[in-house]
Amino acid sequence: MSTPAPNPLRFFEAINAYQQTEAIKAALELDLFTAVAESQGAVPAIAERCRAAERGVRILCDFLTIHGFLTKTGERFALTPDARAFLVRTSPAYLGDSIEFLLSSELVDGFRNLADAVRRGGTALSANGTMESQHPVWVKFARVMGPVVAVSAPALAEVADPRAERPVRVLDIAAGHGLFGIALARRNRQAHIVAQDWAPVLEVAREHASKAGVADRFALLPGSAFEVELGSGYDVVLLTNFLHHFDALTCEQLLRRVARALKPGGVAVTLEFVPNDDRVTPAPAARFSATMLATTIAGDAYTFGEYDAMFRNAGFSRNTLHPLPESPQSAIVSSV
Amino acid sequence: MSTPAPNPLRFFEAINAYQQTEAIKAALELDLFTAVAESQGAVPAIAERCRAAERGVRILCDFLTIHGFLTKTGERFALTPDARAFLVRTSPAYLGDSIEFLLSSELVDGFRNLADAVRRGGTALSANGTMESQHPVWVKFARVMGPVVAVSAPALAEVADPRAERPVRVLDIAAGHGLFGIALARRNRQAHIVAQDWAPVLEVAREHASKAGVADRFALLPGSAFEVELGSGYDVVLLTNFLHHFDALTCEQLLRRVARALKPGGVAVTLEFVPNDDRVTPAPAARFSATMLATTIAGDAYTFGEYDAMFRNAGFSRNTLHPLPESPQSAIVSSV
Repeated sequence: MSTPAPNPLRFFEAINAYQQTEAIKAALELDLFTAVAESQGAVPAIAERCRAAERGVRILCDFLTIHGFLTKTGERFALTPDARAFLVRTSPAYLGDSIEFLLSSELVDGFRNLADAVRRGGTALSANGTMESQHPVWVKFARVMGPVVAVSAPALAEVADPRAERPVRVLDIAAGHGLFGIALARRNRQAHIVAQDWAPVLEVAREHASKAGVADRFALLPGSAFEVELGSGYDVVLLTNFLHHFDALTCEQLLRRVARALKPGGVAVTLEFVPNDDRVTPAPAARFSATMLATTIAGDAYTFGEYDAMFRNAGFSRNTLHPLPESPQSAIVSSV
Repeated sequence: MSTPAPNPLRFFEAINAYQQTEAIKAALELDLFTAVAESQGAVPAIAERCRAAERGVRILCDFLTIHGFLTKTGERFALTPDARAFLVRTSPAYLGDSIEFLLSSELVDGFRNLADAVRRGGTALSANGTMESQHPVWVKFARVMGPVVAVSAPALAEVADPRAERPVRVLDIAAGHGLFGIALARRNRQAHIVAQDWAPVLEVAREHASKAGVADRFALLPGSAFEVELGSGYDVVLLTNFLHHFDALTCEQLLRRVARALKPGGVAVTLEFVPNDDRVTPAPAARFSATMLATTIAGDAYTFGEYDAMFRNAGFSRNTLHPLPESPQSAIVSSV
């Protein structure tokens, strides 16, 4: 058996990976994908629409072709199907605004000194990282991440309320943009949602509920998920992208509150990045743990086994894992 | 024919690509790869050697496994062959110090506002970008990039002086670390090198020549490649990683000086990132054009056809392309 000679290419690719981030950011800022969609894909036409230099556009388009966002035939560029769906501003699934959160200084700065975070075992940002009380990044999150959750919200609503034919009371913890609860309300006209989050964040959720035409079944519960009176008798409690911010004991503390808020037969529905037990597959879920290291004190991408233990410790007796199609995330359905 | 539904995964991967850069940088700063090499690969042992927290080390090692630098078996990590060769500090091929140049603020800042560079059609840094006269980044480059060129320097020397059995006079333009000329001197004991660059950069080249035991055949020619008297009667003129910084007319101006410096039968040997005519393959060469957009006024990753035209316009009659094994770069041999 012969093994190939060691090659430094992978090292250089990783060191220069930040250039991909900057190239996509620049393309969105220039609205280049829209310009490609609305032209025949020749550099002069794209440059005119983007008010940019032809040399700059040509080199950026080549770079985006190399990285899978454009195709190139002769001297003309075209959009890949993914770019057409998600990066053209007029597309209903346009994701471009999400970089205001995904590349916010709060997240990026957490990675800027990752070595310090590794030394400490937690974020090198402020004492509580992005979990500071009422951290403004979450208003930004609520405002721009809607199109990102659009992929998984209907699938999660189906997992949470499969029949969708009876009245259900839903508590949406750390609702943020509110779109998961709203998806339930749209799926089932007998669903009533209580959205909990910090008051400034709930303003965004309220706007979304109004636009979706479900405002009359959408109540607001401002305050901390760990402190506010949650109420009781819920059929469904949603825990979407929240538990990953905390250590297991803190999660269990919250889950005990959730167990008490459910009515008999009710379910907690968790949406999370859930890697396999090896913690390195599948990559899109597993690599999320690094974001939790960089931006929180003790959060993680927990495995299903770890979530199962947390829920059991908090009084739940049955937890099932539901991978969501087209999403790097999974749902966990838990009953007491 | 069915096409797969559009998926936003590639977009998220590119947006978060900067995390790979930060993870490798953190691992090198913590000397984590050396710690893995010198331990059995369990997290507590790595953490102790890195003086870091186990949680931080575990998450970083998982991330590096996902991205191909480590392997994981049970709870133990090990190095991939590439990481063992290039990222362990005690390895003769250790590349870690190269990030002082590759991630220097001069290069990274060029990408930080790539949209502006696209609008202008050239660097948004200072007027001349990294081509400012005597820019200090090139001393840094000379100091840390030696191990990177070690891969291609012997192969380039073989292309430049295949027989290595007769006296040759070599002019190394923009010599930097000097290692390409030094490789020629080591290959052929009858080779004499004249290394041209700015004086502070040549100090580094002189140190390298001494260490390599070729200082007695290594002369210094400080000054600008465009202005200094280059001399004449050279068998070989090396142009390594220099032409890509300039527009074609500027390159031709320099190449005319090179043609005059060669003796009859002499050759200019260029080392460059040379993409195919489509400018998007092969990726490691083609994507270099973005670095030239971000950091220079008018540089590029030129195709062989473009170099061929520049050399012909400058009085050369024959140019041949030589891909270098194990390297993303190619050599071009040009004779008058």
